[in-house]
Order: sequence, then C-alpha cells, then structure tokens
Amino acid sequence: MTEPAIADWKSLSESKRAANNKKIPSAWRLPSSITDQISETSTLNVLDIPRTCGILTLEEVELTEKYDATALVEKMSSGEIKSYDVTLAFCKRAAIAQQLVNCLTEIFFEEALSRARQCDDYLAKEGNPIGPLHGLPISLKDSFNVKGTQTTIGYVSFLSHPPATHNSYLVDILFKAGAVFYVKTNLPQTMMTADSHNNVFGRTLNPNKLCLTAGGSTGGEGALLKLRGSVMGLATDIAGSNRIPAVCNGISSLKPTASRIPFGGGVPPGRLGSPSSILPVIGPCGHSVRDFELLMKTVIDSEPWGADENVLNVPWRKVEPVTKPLRFGLIRAHPKRPLHPPVARTLHSAATILKDAGHSIVLLDDKIPDLWESAILAWKYFLLDPKKTPVGIVNASGEPWVPSIATVGFEELAGWQASLDELWDMNVARAKILRAYKDLMVNNKLDAIIMPGYQATAVPHDTYGVPVYTVLQNLLNYPAGILPYLKATKQLDEPFFKRDAGYEPPYIPDVFEGAPGTIQLVGKPMKDEELVEIMKVVEGLLKEAS
Amino acid sequence: MTEPAIADWKSLSESKRAANNKKIPSAWRLPSSITDQISETSTLNVLDIPRTCGILTLEEVELTEKYDATALVEKMSSGEIKSYDVTLAFCKRAAIAQQLVNCLTEIFFEEALSRARQCDDYLAKEGNPIGPLHGLPISLKDSFNVKGTQTTIGYVSFLSHPPATHNSYLVDILFKAGAVFYVKTNLPQTMMTADSHNNVFGRTLNPNKLCLTAGGSTGGEGALLKLRGSVMGLATDIAGSNRIPAVCNGISSLKPTASRIPFGGGVPPGRLGSPSSILPVIGPCGHSVRDFELLMKTVIDSEPWGADENVLNVPWRKVEPVTKPLRFGLIRAHPKRPLHPPVARTLHSAATILKDAGHSIVLLDDKIPDLWESAILAWKYFLLDPKKTPVGIVNASGEPWVPSIATVGFEELAGWQASLDELWDMNVARAKILRAYKDLMVNNKLDAIIMPGYQATAVPHDTYGVPVYTVLQNLLNYPAGILPYLKATKQLDEPFFKRDAGYEPPYIPDVFEGAPGTIQLVGKPMKDEELVEIMKVVEGLLKEAS
Repeated sequence: MTEPAIADWKSLSESKRAANNKKIPSAWRLPSSITDQISETSTLNVLDIPRTCGILTLEEVELTEKYDATALVEKMSSGEIKSYDVTLAFCKRAAIAQQLVNCLTEIFFEEALSRARQCDDYLAKEGNPIGPLHGLPISLKDSFNVKGTQTTIGYVSFLSHPPATHNSYLVDILFKAGAVFYVKTNLPQTMMTADSHNNVFGRTLNPNKLCLTAGGSTGGEGALLKLRGSVMGLATDIAGSNRIPAVCNGISSLKPTASRIPFGGGVPPGRLGSPSSILPVIGPCGHSVRDFELLMKTVIDSEPWGADENVLNVPWRKVEPVTKPLRFGLIRAHPKRPLHPPVARTLHSAATILKDAGHSIVLLDDKIPDLWESAILAWKYFLLDPKKTPVGIVNASGEPWVPSIATVGFEELAGWQASLDELWDMNVARAKILRAYKDLMVNNKLDAIIMPGYQATAVPHDTYGVPVYTVLQNLLNYPAGILPYLKATKQLDEPFFKRDAGYEPPYIPDVFEGAPGTIQLVGKPMKDEELVEIMKVVEGLLKEAS
Repeated sequence: MTEPAIADWKSLSESKRAANNKKIPSAWRLPSSITDQISETSTLNVLDIPRTCGILTLEEVELTEKYDATALVEKMSSGEIKSYDVTLAFCKRAAIAQQLVNCLTEIFFEEALSRARQCDDYLAKEGNPIGPLHGLPISLKDSFNVKGTQTTIGYVSFLSHPPATHNSYLVDILFKAGAVFYVKTNLPQTMMTADSHNNVFGRTLNPNKLCLTAGGSTGGEGALLKLRGSVMGLATDIAGSNRIPAVCNGISSLKPTASRIPFGGGVPPGRLGSPSSILPVIGPCGHSVRDFELLMKTVIDSEPWGADENVLNVPWRKVEPVTKPLRFGLIRAHPKRPLHPPVARTLHSAATILKDAGHSIVLLDDKIPDLWESAILAWKYFLLDPKKTPVGIVNASGEPWVPSIATVGFEELAGWQASLDELWDMNVARAKILRAYKDLMVNNKLDAIIMPGYQATAVPHDTYGVPVYTVLQNLLNYPAGILPYLKATKQLDEPFFKRDAGYEPPYIPDVFEGAPGTIQLVGKPMKDEELVEIMKVVEGLLKEAS
C-alpha cells in the first residue's frame, strides 16, 4: 500500500496491455475492417461478430452458443465432446470478445489448453470425470488469484506485484472439481463503480451497443458472457457487482447469501478487516439457472470451510422443484429513481406473466423502508475505513481517478466521516430495515420478491450512478438474481413513459434502443436453494414468452 | 438510559426483594434452623436440603431428581404424568433453592401452574401433546422478556420499568412448543462478570459450597439447576455466561454456534448495534446432552427466522450417532492461568478415558495462538461502545458497582480506548486466529477439542477474574459445551500440584474441596449437530467412569 509514486504510469499500463495483446494468436485476430469500428462512442451491436467473423469453425460456434455449462459438462463427462475442443472454442471466442469490447485482464490460453488436455486424458484413463465441473472453462473476475498470473485489479500500483503464488480458495475448489481457467476479466478502479474502467486495462464496452456501459464491477464478465466468450463466470458483489453487469449486458446471475461460497484468497480493492455489516459475496453469472445450481452445489458439497474458515459450514440442501403457486412481492420504483420505460415495461410484462401462470403478486412499494435511505445507509458501510486505503493505492502510482468514481456518491453523504459511535447507530438502523423486510416476507407469506435490478437498461458510459436497486440485497444479505427478458424498444416502451418522472440518468429513447431488459428476483436469506428453484420457474416462463 | 438518579435505591431494591419473597407460599418455607446457616462465607453444601427438608413429597423428589427433560416430556406427552404435578414440584424446589442460594429474580408460580393445567387439559382433550416440549417447566435467565413480568437484569434503574409487554422471541417459540415458565434467574450487574451479584437481587451462592461463586453471568440458572429446582434452563453467552455457571455448579451446558437460536426480544445490558465480531449466543443448561438436542431441534424446527431475522435460516440436521473412533484436540493450559490440581486431574482423567475407549488425542497446547492474547482481543470487542452505556445505566440509579466488576479486566487494556481504525486491525487479528484454529482442526482431522472450561473449579466469590478458557469459543464462534466430571478431592489432586505454578486465583486445597469438576468440549462452527453427538459419547464414558 506504500508503493512509491510511479514516474510514468502510462507506459507501465501500455506494456501490460501490449503483453496481453501478444497472447492473442494472429489467427484469432479480427480484421481492421471490424476493429476500426470499435469505439466507446459507437452504437454498434457486436453480438454477431464472433459467429460471423470466420475465426470460429461451425463446430466451435455450436460449442460456444448452443449449450449451457451443465450440458457441456454432461457431454464432456461422457466423452461425447472433448474439453480441449470446448476450451479452444472459448479461448478463441474470448480473444474475439477482447478485441471487440476489451473485457479481459489476464489471458492464459496455453495453460488452459494444457489443463483441458489433462481433463480429457484423465477421463480416457480413469473412465470417469475429474469432478462435477469436468473440463469446464470458467472465466474469473480479475480479483481472483490464479497461481502464476498477476492480480492487479486494475490498480497501476499493483502492476509491480509478482504473479500470484496461490489460488483464491474458490479457484482451488473449482479446479479440483474439474474446471479449466483461461481468462480473467476487467473491473473498475476500486471495484466500486458500475463502469469497468481502470487505468491499467481501460474500459470494457457493452457488446449490445458499444456506447453503453458493460456495468461493473464485474463488467468484463458481463460483456464476455454476453458474447458467449464464456459459459460461466464468477463475480463478486457488495453493492451489485454480480448483478449490474447482468443487467447491463442481458445475462443471468446469482448473488447468493453471504458466506456460502468461499470469498477468501483473492485481492481486495481496499483494506482487510472491515467491521461493515455488509459482507462481500461471490456468485456465478451466465446463461442458465441450473448452471448456478451446479456451481453452488459443487462448491458447497466440497465442504469449503476446510479451505476458508469464513464460509458458513452448512450443506447445500436438496429442495424439490416448485409445484405449487408462488407468492411474489413486487417492488417497482423509488421516486428518486423512477423506472425508465423499457424497464417498467419489462417488469410489468414479467409480473403479468407470473400472474397469468397462477402465481400471486403482492405490491410492496408503499410497505418497504425507503429504498433511497437504505442505499445511503449501505453506502456509509462502504465508507468506514478511516485510512481510505483505496485512495492511497491510487495515489501511490500517480494514476488519475476514472470518471465514473465521481458519479457513485450520495450528495447526502458529502463530507460524512465514519465514527465508531455512529457505526452502532448504523447497525440499529440496519436492524430495523432487516426486521421490516422479514415481517413483509413472513406476513405476506412471500416466496420471493420481483423488482428491477436498476432503474434503466445499460446506460451511457459513466452515467450509472448509485445502484439503489441492487445494494438493497447486500444490506439485507438476501440472495438475489438477474434474469434477462425483453429489450428496449421505443415504440413498445412509449406507453410507459411519464413526462414528469425526472428520469436519472435522462431517458432518451434512441440512446437505449436495443439495450437488454432484465428483472431481479430476491429470495430469503440462506434459502439460496429455494431461490434457485424459483428462478428456474421464472426463467422458464420468461423464455416461453420471449 | 437517562433515568434520573434514584434518591434511595436501597429501599427500591428491598421492596423488589420483599415482593418476590411474598411469592413463596409459607408451606414452602424452610425453617430458620436451615436458613440461619445460609451465608456467603459458609462452607455448607446444601444439595441435599431440597430432598430432606420435607417440603417435597417423595413423588416430587422423584419428579425433580430422577428424570431429564426428555424423559419428563415423554411421560407428560403420554399422559403418564401431569404437567401440573411436574410444574408444582419444580416450583416448590425452586422456592427452596431461592431460600438456599438466592438464585431467582422473578417468580410466577401461579401463572406456571395455570399454564401446566392448560397443557394437561389440551392433552386430555386433543389426545396429543401441544408440542415437543409439552408441559415442560423451563427456567430463564432474567434477561429474557416474559410478558407480564419485569426484566430488570439486576439494574436498579430498571426497577422503574413496567412489566414486559412481549416475550423474547425464543420464549414465544418455546411456549408454542408446550413449555411452562415459572421463574427467571439471577445474573451479575452488567452481565459481564462471573459472579451473579447485583444491587437489586443480591448475590447467588454456590449450592455445592456457599462460600464459592455460582458463576455468571447465568449463575442463577447454574445454582437452580444444580439443586434440581429446574430441569432445563436457558443462558446467554458472550464470554462464557452459559458455561461458567456449568463449570462452577457442576452441570452440563451447550453454547451453540451464534445465530442458530433466536437471541432477540430480550433486554440487553448495554447498547444495541454493536459492531463487534463476537455475537451473543443463547444455549441450554441442564442435566443431559439429549435435552440440549431436544431444545435445539425444537427451536430450529420451528423456523425461528420467522420470529427473529437475525437467526441463520438453516435447518437442524439429522446426524447419525458416533460409531467410529473420534479425534480430539487437547488444550491444557496457558502459563498465565495454570490449571488448579483438581482441574488438571479431571482433564487428565477424561482424556485418558477417551483414549482408553479408542479415541485419539492430539495435544494442541504449543500449536494454538496464544490464549491470553486471544482473550485480550475478545475483551477489546466488549469495550467498543464509546458511550459506555452500562456505566450510564448504573450511574443513573446511584447504585454502586458490585465488587467483581473490578476483577474482570485485563491490565494490558488499562486506559485502552476503542477506535474505528483499530477495529479494522482487530478484525484482521481475529481472522488470523480463526484461520489458525481452522487449520488445526482440518490438518489434524479433529472432530472436537477437549479443554478446561476454567483454570479452577468454582472459586471464592469475586475472585473468578477473566474467563480465558471460555471466551475463546466466543471469539472463534465455535460451539462448546460443559460436562460435569469428578470433584475436587485434595488427596487425589495432590499429585497434580505444581509448587511454582503461580495459580490464579490462589490454590488452597481446603477452599476448593468438594467443588465439582467439569470438562469443556468444543466443536466446529455450524456443526452443533455433530458436537451434540460427540458430547453424548463423552457424557456416556464419563458417567460410566464416575
């Protein structure tokens, strides 16, 4: 934390990026006719390029597009397809994604292919898979340690750090289960903004529309997954970092209850030892809810307390699929952050579908504690470090702040200084909020809550602001997930437009046109198993309706 | 918290005690030939008096002495015996205990008998019990709220509080399960000493030897249970308050992992909202491990998250009884608090029995983080309130500090002031300790740890000092229990005496002669179910050997 300021941080970052670039074989390079169009102001949708650019074989297109992780593992475990072929396909596609949206931080294709070969050989020799993730390529947010690769988390001053000498605990567990690691992905400076932008790796763009944010803090994953350069990725989440990229890119994600998945062994963006009541969480992002179940069950079945003493030493419970009507609470919007028309339409449509399928909806808007105040309270927990460690880390290199940093504060907290005395009062305030939501869940016999993940779809770079709709579940420590559904379509959205709503950021239909829609589902704490089953039901209904 | 100072706090306390006294019917009063002998300097053992004083019928002696809670519930649920008779027997015996050792704070015999009748009537009418605790009298530490009775927790200034208008969450759950409440029990001023002594109710004495402490903070329970004036009691524990009274009186107890049993709804001795990493816990005290299982299972099966959102929403797992050899870590002593000879003999004997039964023992003394330093760290967590709320509560009435308060500090913390900045460092220090113990448990494949609950048996009043051997499990949030075994016997203890040990408090064989011995068992976090099964094994072996 006390590195000397770096005389020429720009050239250091440039070297890092150049070294990364070299890891993409020339055969996997996009032509300049495509790359010349890439810019953060372009309205280009690049989702079709991996399929059409000619770098992937038809088989590779199929391997990367047609299956979820569960299906791939089944096929690889039976020997029907080889991990080597799957891994090669995802390496190629990740390389393409990197050229389109700048989503990668560390690239280790060779190690991945060698590991994939090892998985295939094991199966051939032993006749059974290595484990429940046999041969599966998994992408990782940069903050995970992977032995032999660097973990800079986008801090210039961390460029001087040697490659990691150990894996994050979760990485170890996934490896033992048969996973193949091939890339780490981009994130914001300090990991506390929704724009995955830092001075080491630059900015990740949204593949749906390059001029929009890919979200953060796990935006590299979000963009990579949307481009199907990965089939499953791992994200951390303390205010929405697992869910915001899912919202922005239009993929699925799950933030479990804290301490079920081992968090330790990675590189934190700030100081260790926080007395905050909000715990950081790791959760999967990807393409299907059953993949999240596979991930959760695999990790928890491994008894991860043996690796990370901060894990709750409780089993993954087998719960039955949902067979009876569910009861959903519905939270729509806070007046300070009214829903953009595409989001209002998506939520309305999803709620209607649930009702039509026989499930109940209970409107909670007027019954919940003020969402804005809850978010402010959460933000105070993020400001508890008197040493302001991330500031020191940034200043150590002389790198500037990325622009989005200035957009993620609350005016109400200008000049606010944490104190031990107020921390007691904050905990009492949080206890009241916890109590209110518990009472709502219990008294209304709710199985889950449906709500937006954000007031808008993906927004222009550096305009995301405070994540009021995702930080709530961190404050509560309720599990929550994102499911993609619909997309911004100005004609269809128009009926949901309210002239005096005071949209923030501003709603300009053409800017958002084509951006993916999503909904957020929130479960009860420690009932991740039940939330997964509920999400499967909703996922099925939304897919049918799409 | 801002009550005006009370002009004459003594007369207020005297009125409270006089009112309590009146709740003991004259037929249940001990003769002055006995009560005249009661004093805190007496060496009298009063354990036989309830049986021999003639107040209980032979049947009542049997009901209160012969069964554990599980057996009583079975007999009451089948209609073989009546809750009314059981409750009456325990009311009488509690009244006797009160006259012998001053263990009660609130007495509500009439309500209890009426509730017992209700249980009996329910069974007669419905043909099935109310619930898994049908008709069972349960005693409660004073800090629990029981609707209609006062909760002063021994603070004079709380004497002005009206009777509770709601039950603690746990009390509600137990009531629904069929429990009968009849008394609340004594505890120390501030609940942070090991002498259950306050200016409202006075001091609880140890029924094994009146001149010794009954322990704290749940000392009223400990003394009442030892006299079999209760068959099961509930204790809180943040530094040993569930286990210290078990150690001092020679009973069994279980402090589960935090947040499995609902803690909320009672009256805290200090400020709410602590950012401490040490969470208070409620656990049962009594006479058999299977009773603790009954309690834990009953409460957790009730899905207590619905009542208390701070409960971990996880089921009580069914685990199989132990059938194969276990591996125990053994922690003996810290040089600053060497084991008194009776404790060293008890621990040595218990470990030998375990080995002889085929279990393994791994000595951990030189492998664990310094116990003394761990206790100091824990103590810092108890000193985090800048408002020093308990001081204000005591000063509000003008009552003096009880003498034991001065004995429970660490010299190393003289003048120490908590700060938000140091709290981060404390959490890092705690994380290292957590990691070290986890590694020891995992690397040595340990099922549990066996260690002393304290360096001595019960000690003279106001000499207990800092509870180094019990606060550890709070710092770690590991479940732990106490089992009674042997007692101080100077001839047998003599070989364990070390001349230069520097015993603290001093070891004077005649003072401790006859005091009960105990051992402590420590399990892995969230593996309360497994610890219960392990404790059953050890309980069986120790009973065989006794």
